[in-house]
Amino acid sequence: MAELLKGAAVVAALNEKMTAEITNLKSKGVSPTLAILRVGERPDDISYEKGAMKRCETVGVAVKNIVLPADVTQDVLIQNVESLNNDKGVHGVLIFRPLPKHLDEEAVRKALKPEKDIDGITDGSLAGVFTGNGNGFPPCTAQACMEILDFYKVNCAGKRAVVIGRSLVVGKPAAVMLMGKNTTVTVCHTKTVDMPAVARTAEILIVAAGKANAVTKEYLAPGQIVVDVGINMTADGKLCGDVKFDDAEPIVGAITPVPGGVGTVTTSVLVSHVVEAAKKLL
Amino acid sequence: MAELLKGAAVVAALNEKMTAEITNLKSKGVSPTLAILRVGERPDDISYEKGAMKRCETVGVAVKNIVLPADVTQDVLIQNVESLNNDKGVHGVLIFRPLPKHLDEEAVRKALKPEKDIDGITDGSLAGVFTGNGNGFPPCTAQACMEILDFYKVNCAGKRAVVIGRSLVVGKPAAVMLMGKNTTVTVCHTKTVDMPAVARTAEILIVAAGKANAVTKEYLAPGQIVVDVGINMTADGKLCGDVKFDDAEPIVGAITPVPGGVGTVTTSVLVSHVVEAAKKLL
Repeated sequence: MAELLKGAAVVAALNEKMTAEITNLKSKGVSPTLAILRVGERPDDISYEKGAMKRCETVGVAVKNIVLPADVTQDVLIQNVESLNNDKGVHGVLIFRPLPKHLDEEAVRKALKPEKDIDGITDGSLAGVFTGNGNGFPPCTAQACMEILDFYKVNCAGKRAVVIGRSLVVGKPAAVMLMGKNTTVTVCHTKTVDMPAVARTAEILIVAAGKANAVTKEYLAPGQIVVDVGINMTADGKLCGDVKFDDAEPIVGAITPVPGGVGTVTTSVLVSHVVEAAKKLL
Repeated sequence: MAELLKGAAVVAALNEKMTAEITNLKSKGVSPTLAILRVGERPDDISYEKGAMKRCETVGVAVKNIVLPADVTQDVLIQNVESLNNDKGVHGVLIFRPLPKHLDEEAVRKALKPEKDIDGITDGSLAGVFTGNGNGFPPCTAQACMEILDFYKVNCAGKRAVVIGRSLVVGKPAAVMLMGKNTTVTVCHTKTVDMPAVARTAEILIVAAGKANAVTKEYLAPGQIVVDVGINMTADGKLCGDVKFDDAEPIVGAITPVPGGVGTVTTSVLVSHVVEAAKKLL
């Protein structure tokens, strides 16, 4: 029976810390504020937006919503980003991506002020993750994995970790962040030969494969700590992770559930970045 | 008997390519120029500078030397960087580091224009390596390892690589660049438990341990391709790598010699970045 690494307890601890920090900020006249810039009406974006707004409300972070039509011009979009850059009342900016295809995402990414880049999309944030120099903000999902390991007191130093997936939002940043914790890290991906054998060598297994139930029992070994980043919809409308939970649960030492694991923590990490950004202004 | 992956042949191929490109650039009125900014008279810096200047001369890249006294002020140093930023006749800038302790290296790094950052020190270049988006220039030593693998037609896709070392100039960028070649990469470092066992699983072993003869026979397996990044001076004044060559030579499939391996190629990569930077202006 694996221990369940539930996100709720991590979120509660993050919220408690943030609430104290926000009280302190407000006593100094600073009201931490997140701007959410959305282009169009994609259901995924709207769903994430709702979750983020609720989480902000819980801890007392203000939200400013900017919604632009799906056919907005590049110029108008950049003007909006620049206006948020210059708005002293806004501490963090979340821009939903992918943007509609007629827009130049790279130019938008470059237009955003690194200090307000709470979602880790600018060069400043990406270089900060890569170098570990603390500049900018790491991608929220990768940091959520680290927050879970920290909260459940997983000592990463000297451990062998395997990260499945090499995306810029999870796999690569999680790998580099684990290196910073003195973990010996292996990154697997679609071109990895005999991935199950590699995965079984892990003491900590981070799974961001992007495919429902991709990790089955032959990937798993007793005692492993498994962080399942996947969020997938099954044919019968239920959520499931990238790890086949029923395979993992009798084998591994601990695992994050889906739903209720990494995803839950990600939104709190986003909000905590807004608070961090506001603190840097004091 | 391991195959020797000599740097000279890689350099010759890079030089041939560069010479054609430089001829083309000059025919269009562009003379690729490297500015070398040195603070003080550290023997290591002077030695690298001489090597770089010679390599530039061979292929026809011009060099502009700026030497500032070891007690230069931060303001004067930044002014020099900005003047190089604005100098249309300069395509790449190499700044020797570490700088003397009274200087703010981070501010200098931020002052340099990313387009001229041929040594991969700015956020733009570091983010470019991390994301693989081709922006900026990767650190020259890490790229030299890739150039050697490319030249000797090592097919990295699906292979297992182990990188020993997690520095920003070699280990981390080499690991990310190998991921980009579809290699399954493990990064080891001083906190890795049983590093010999991990190293033996490698088909490609990149060694940047920073310690003479650190990698002995128990790290090695038959058929491995070994890239030795180390350059160390022995007690009797000879150069040696991080791999104990006499241990490796009878076991592995191929290995870079020291001297005459990675170090040789690094300087050529630096010069090739100047040519690339100049090409981007056309």
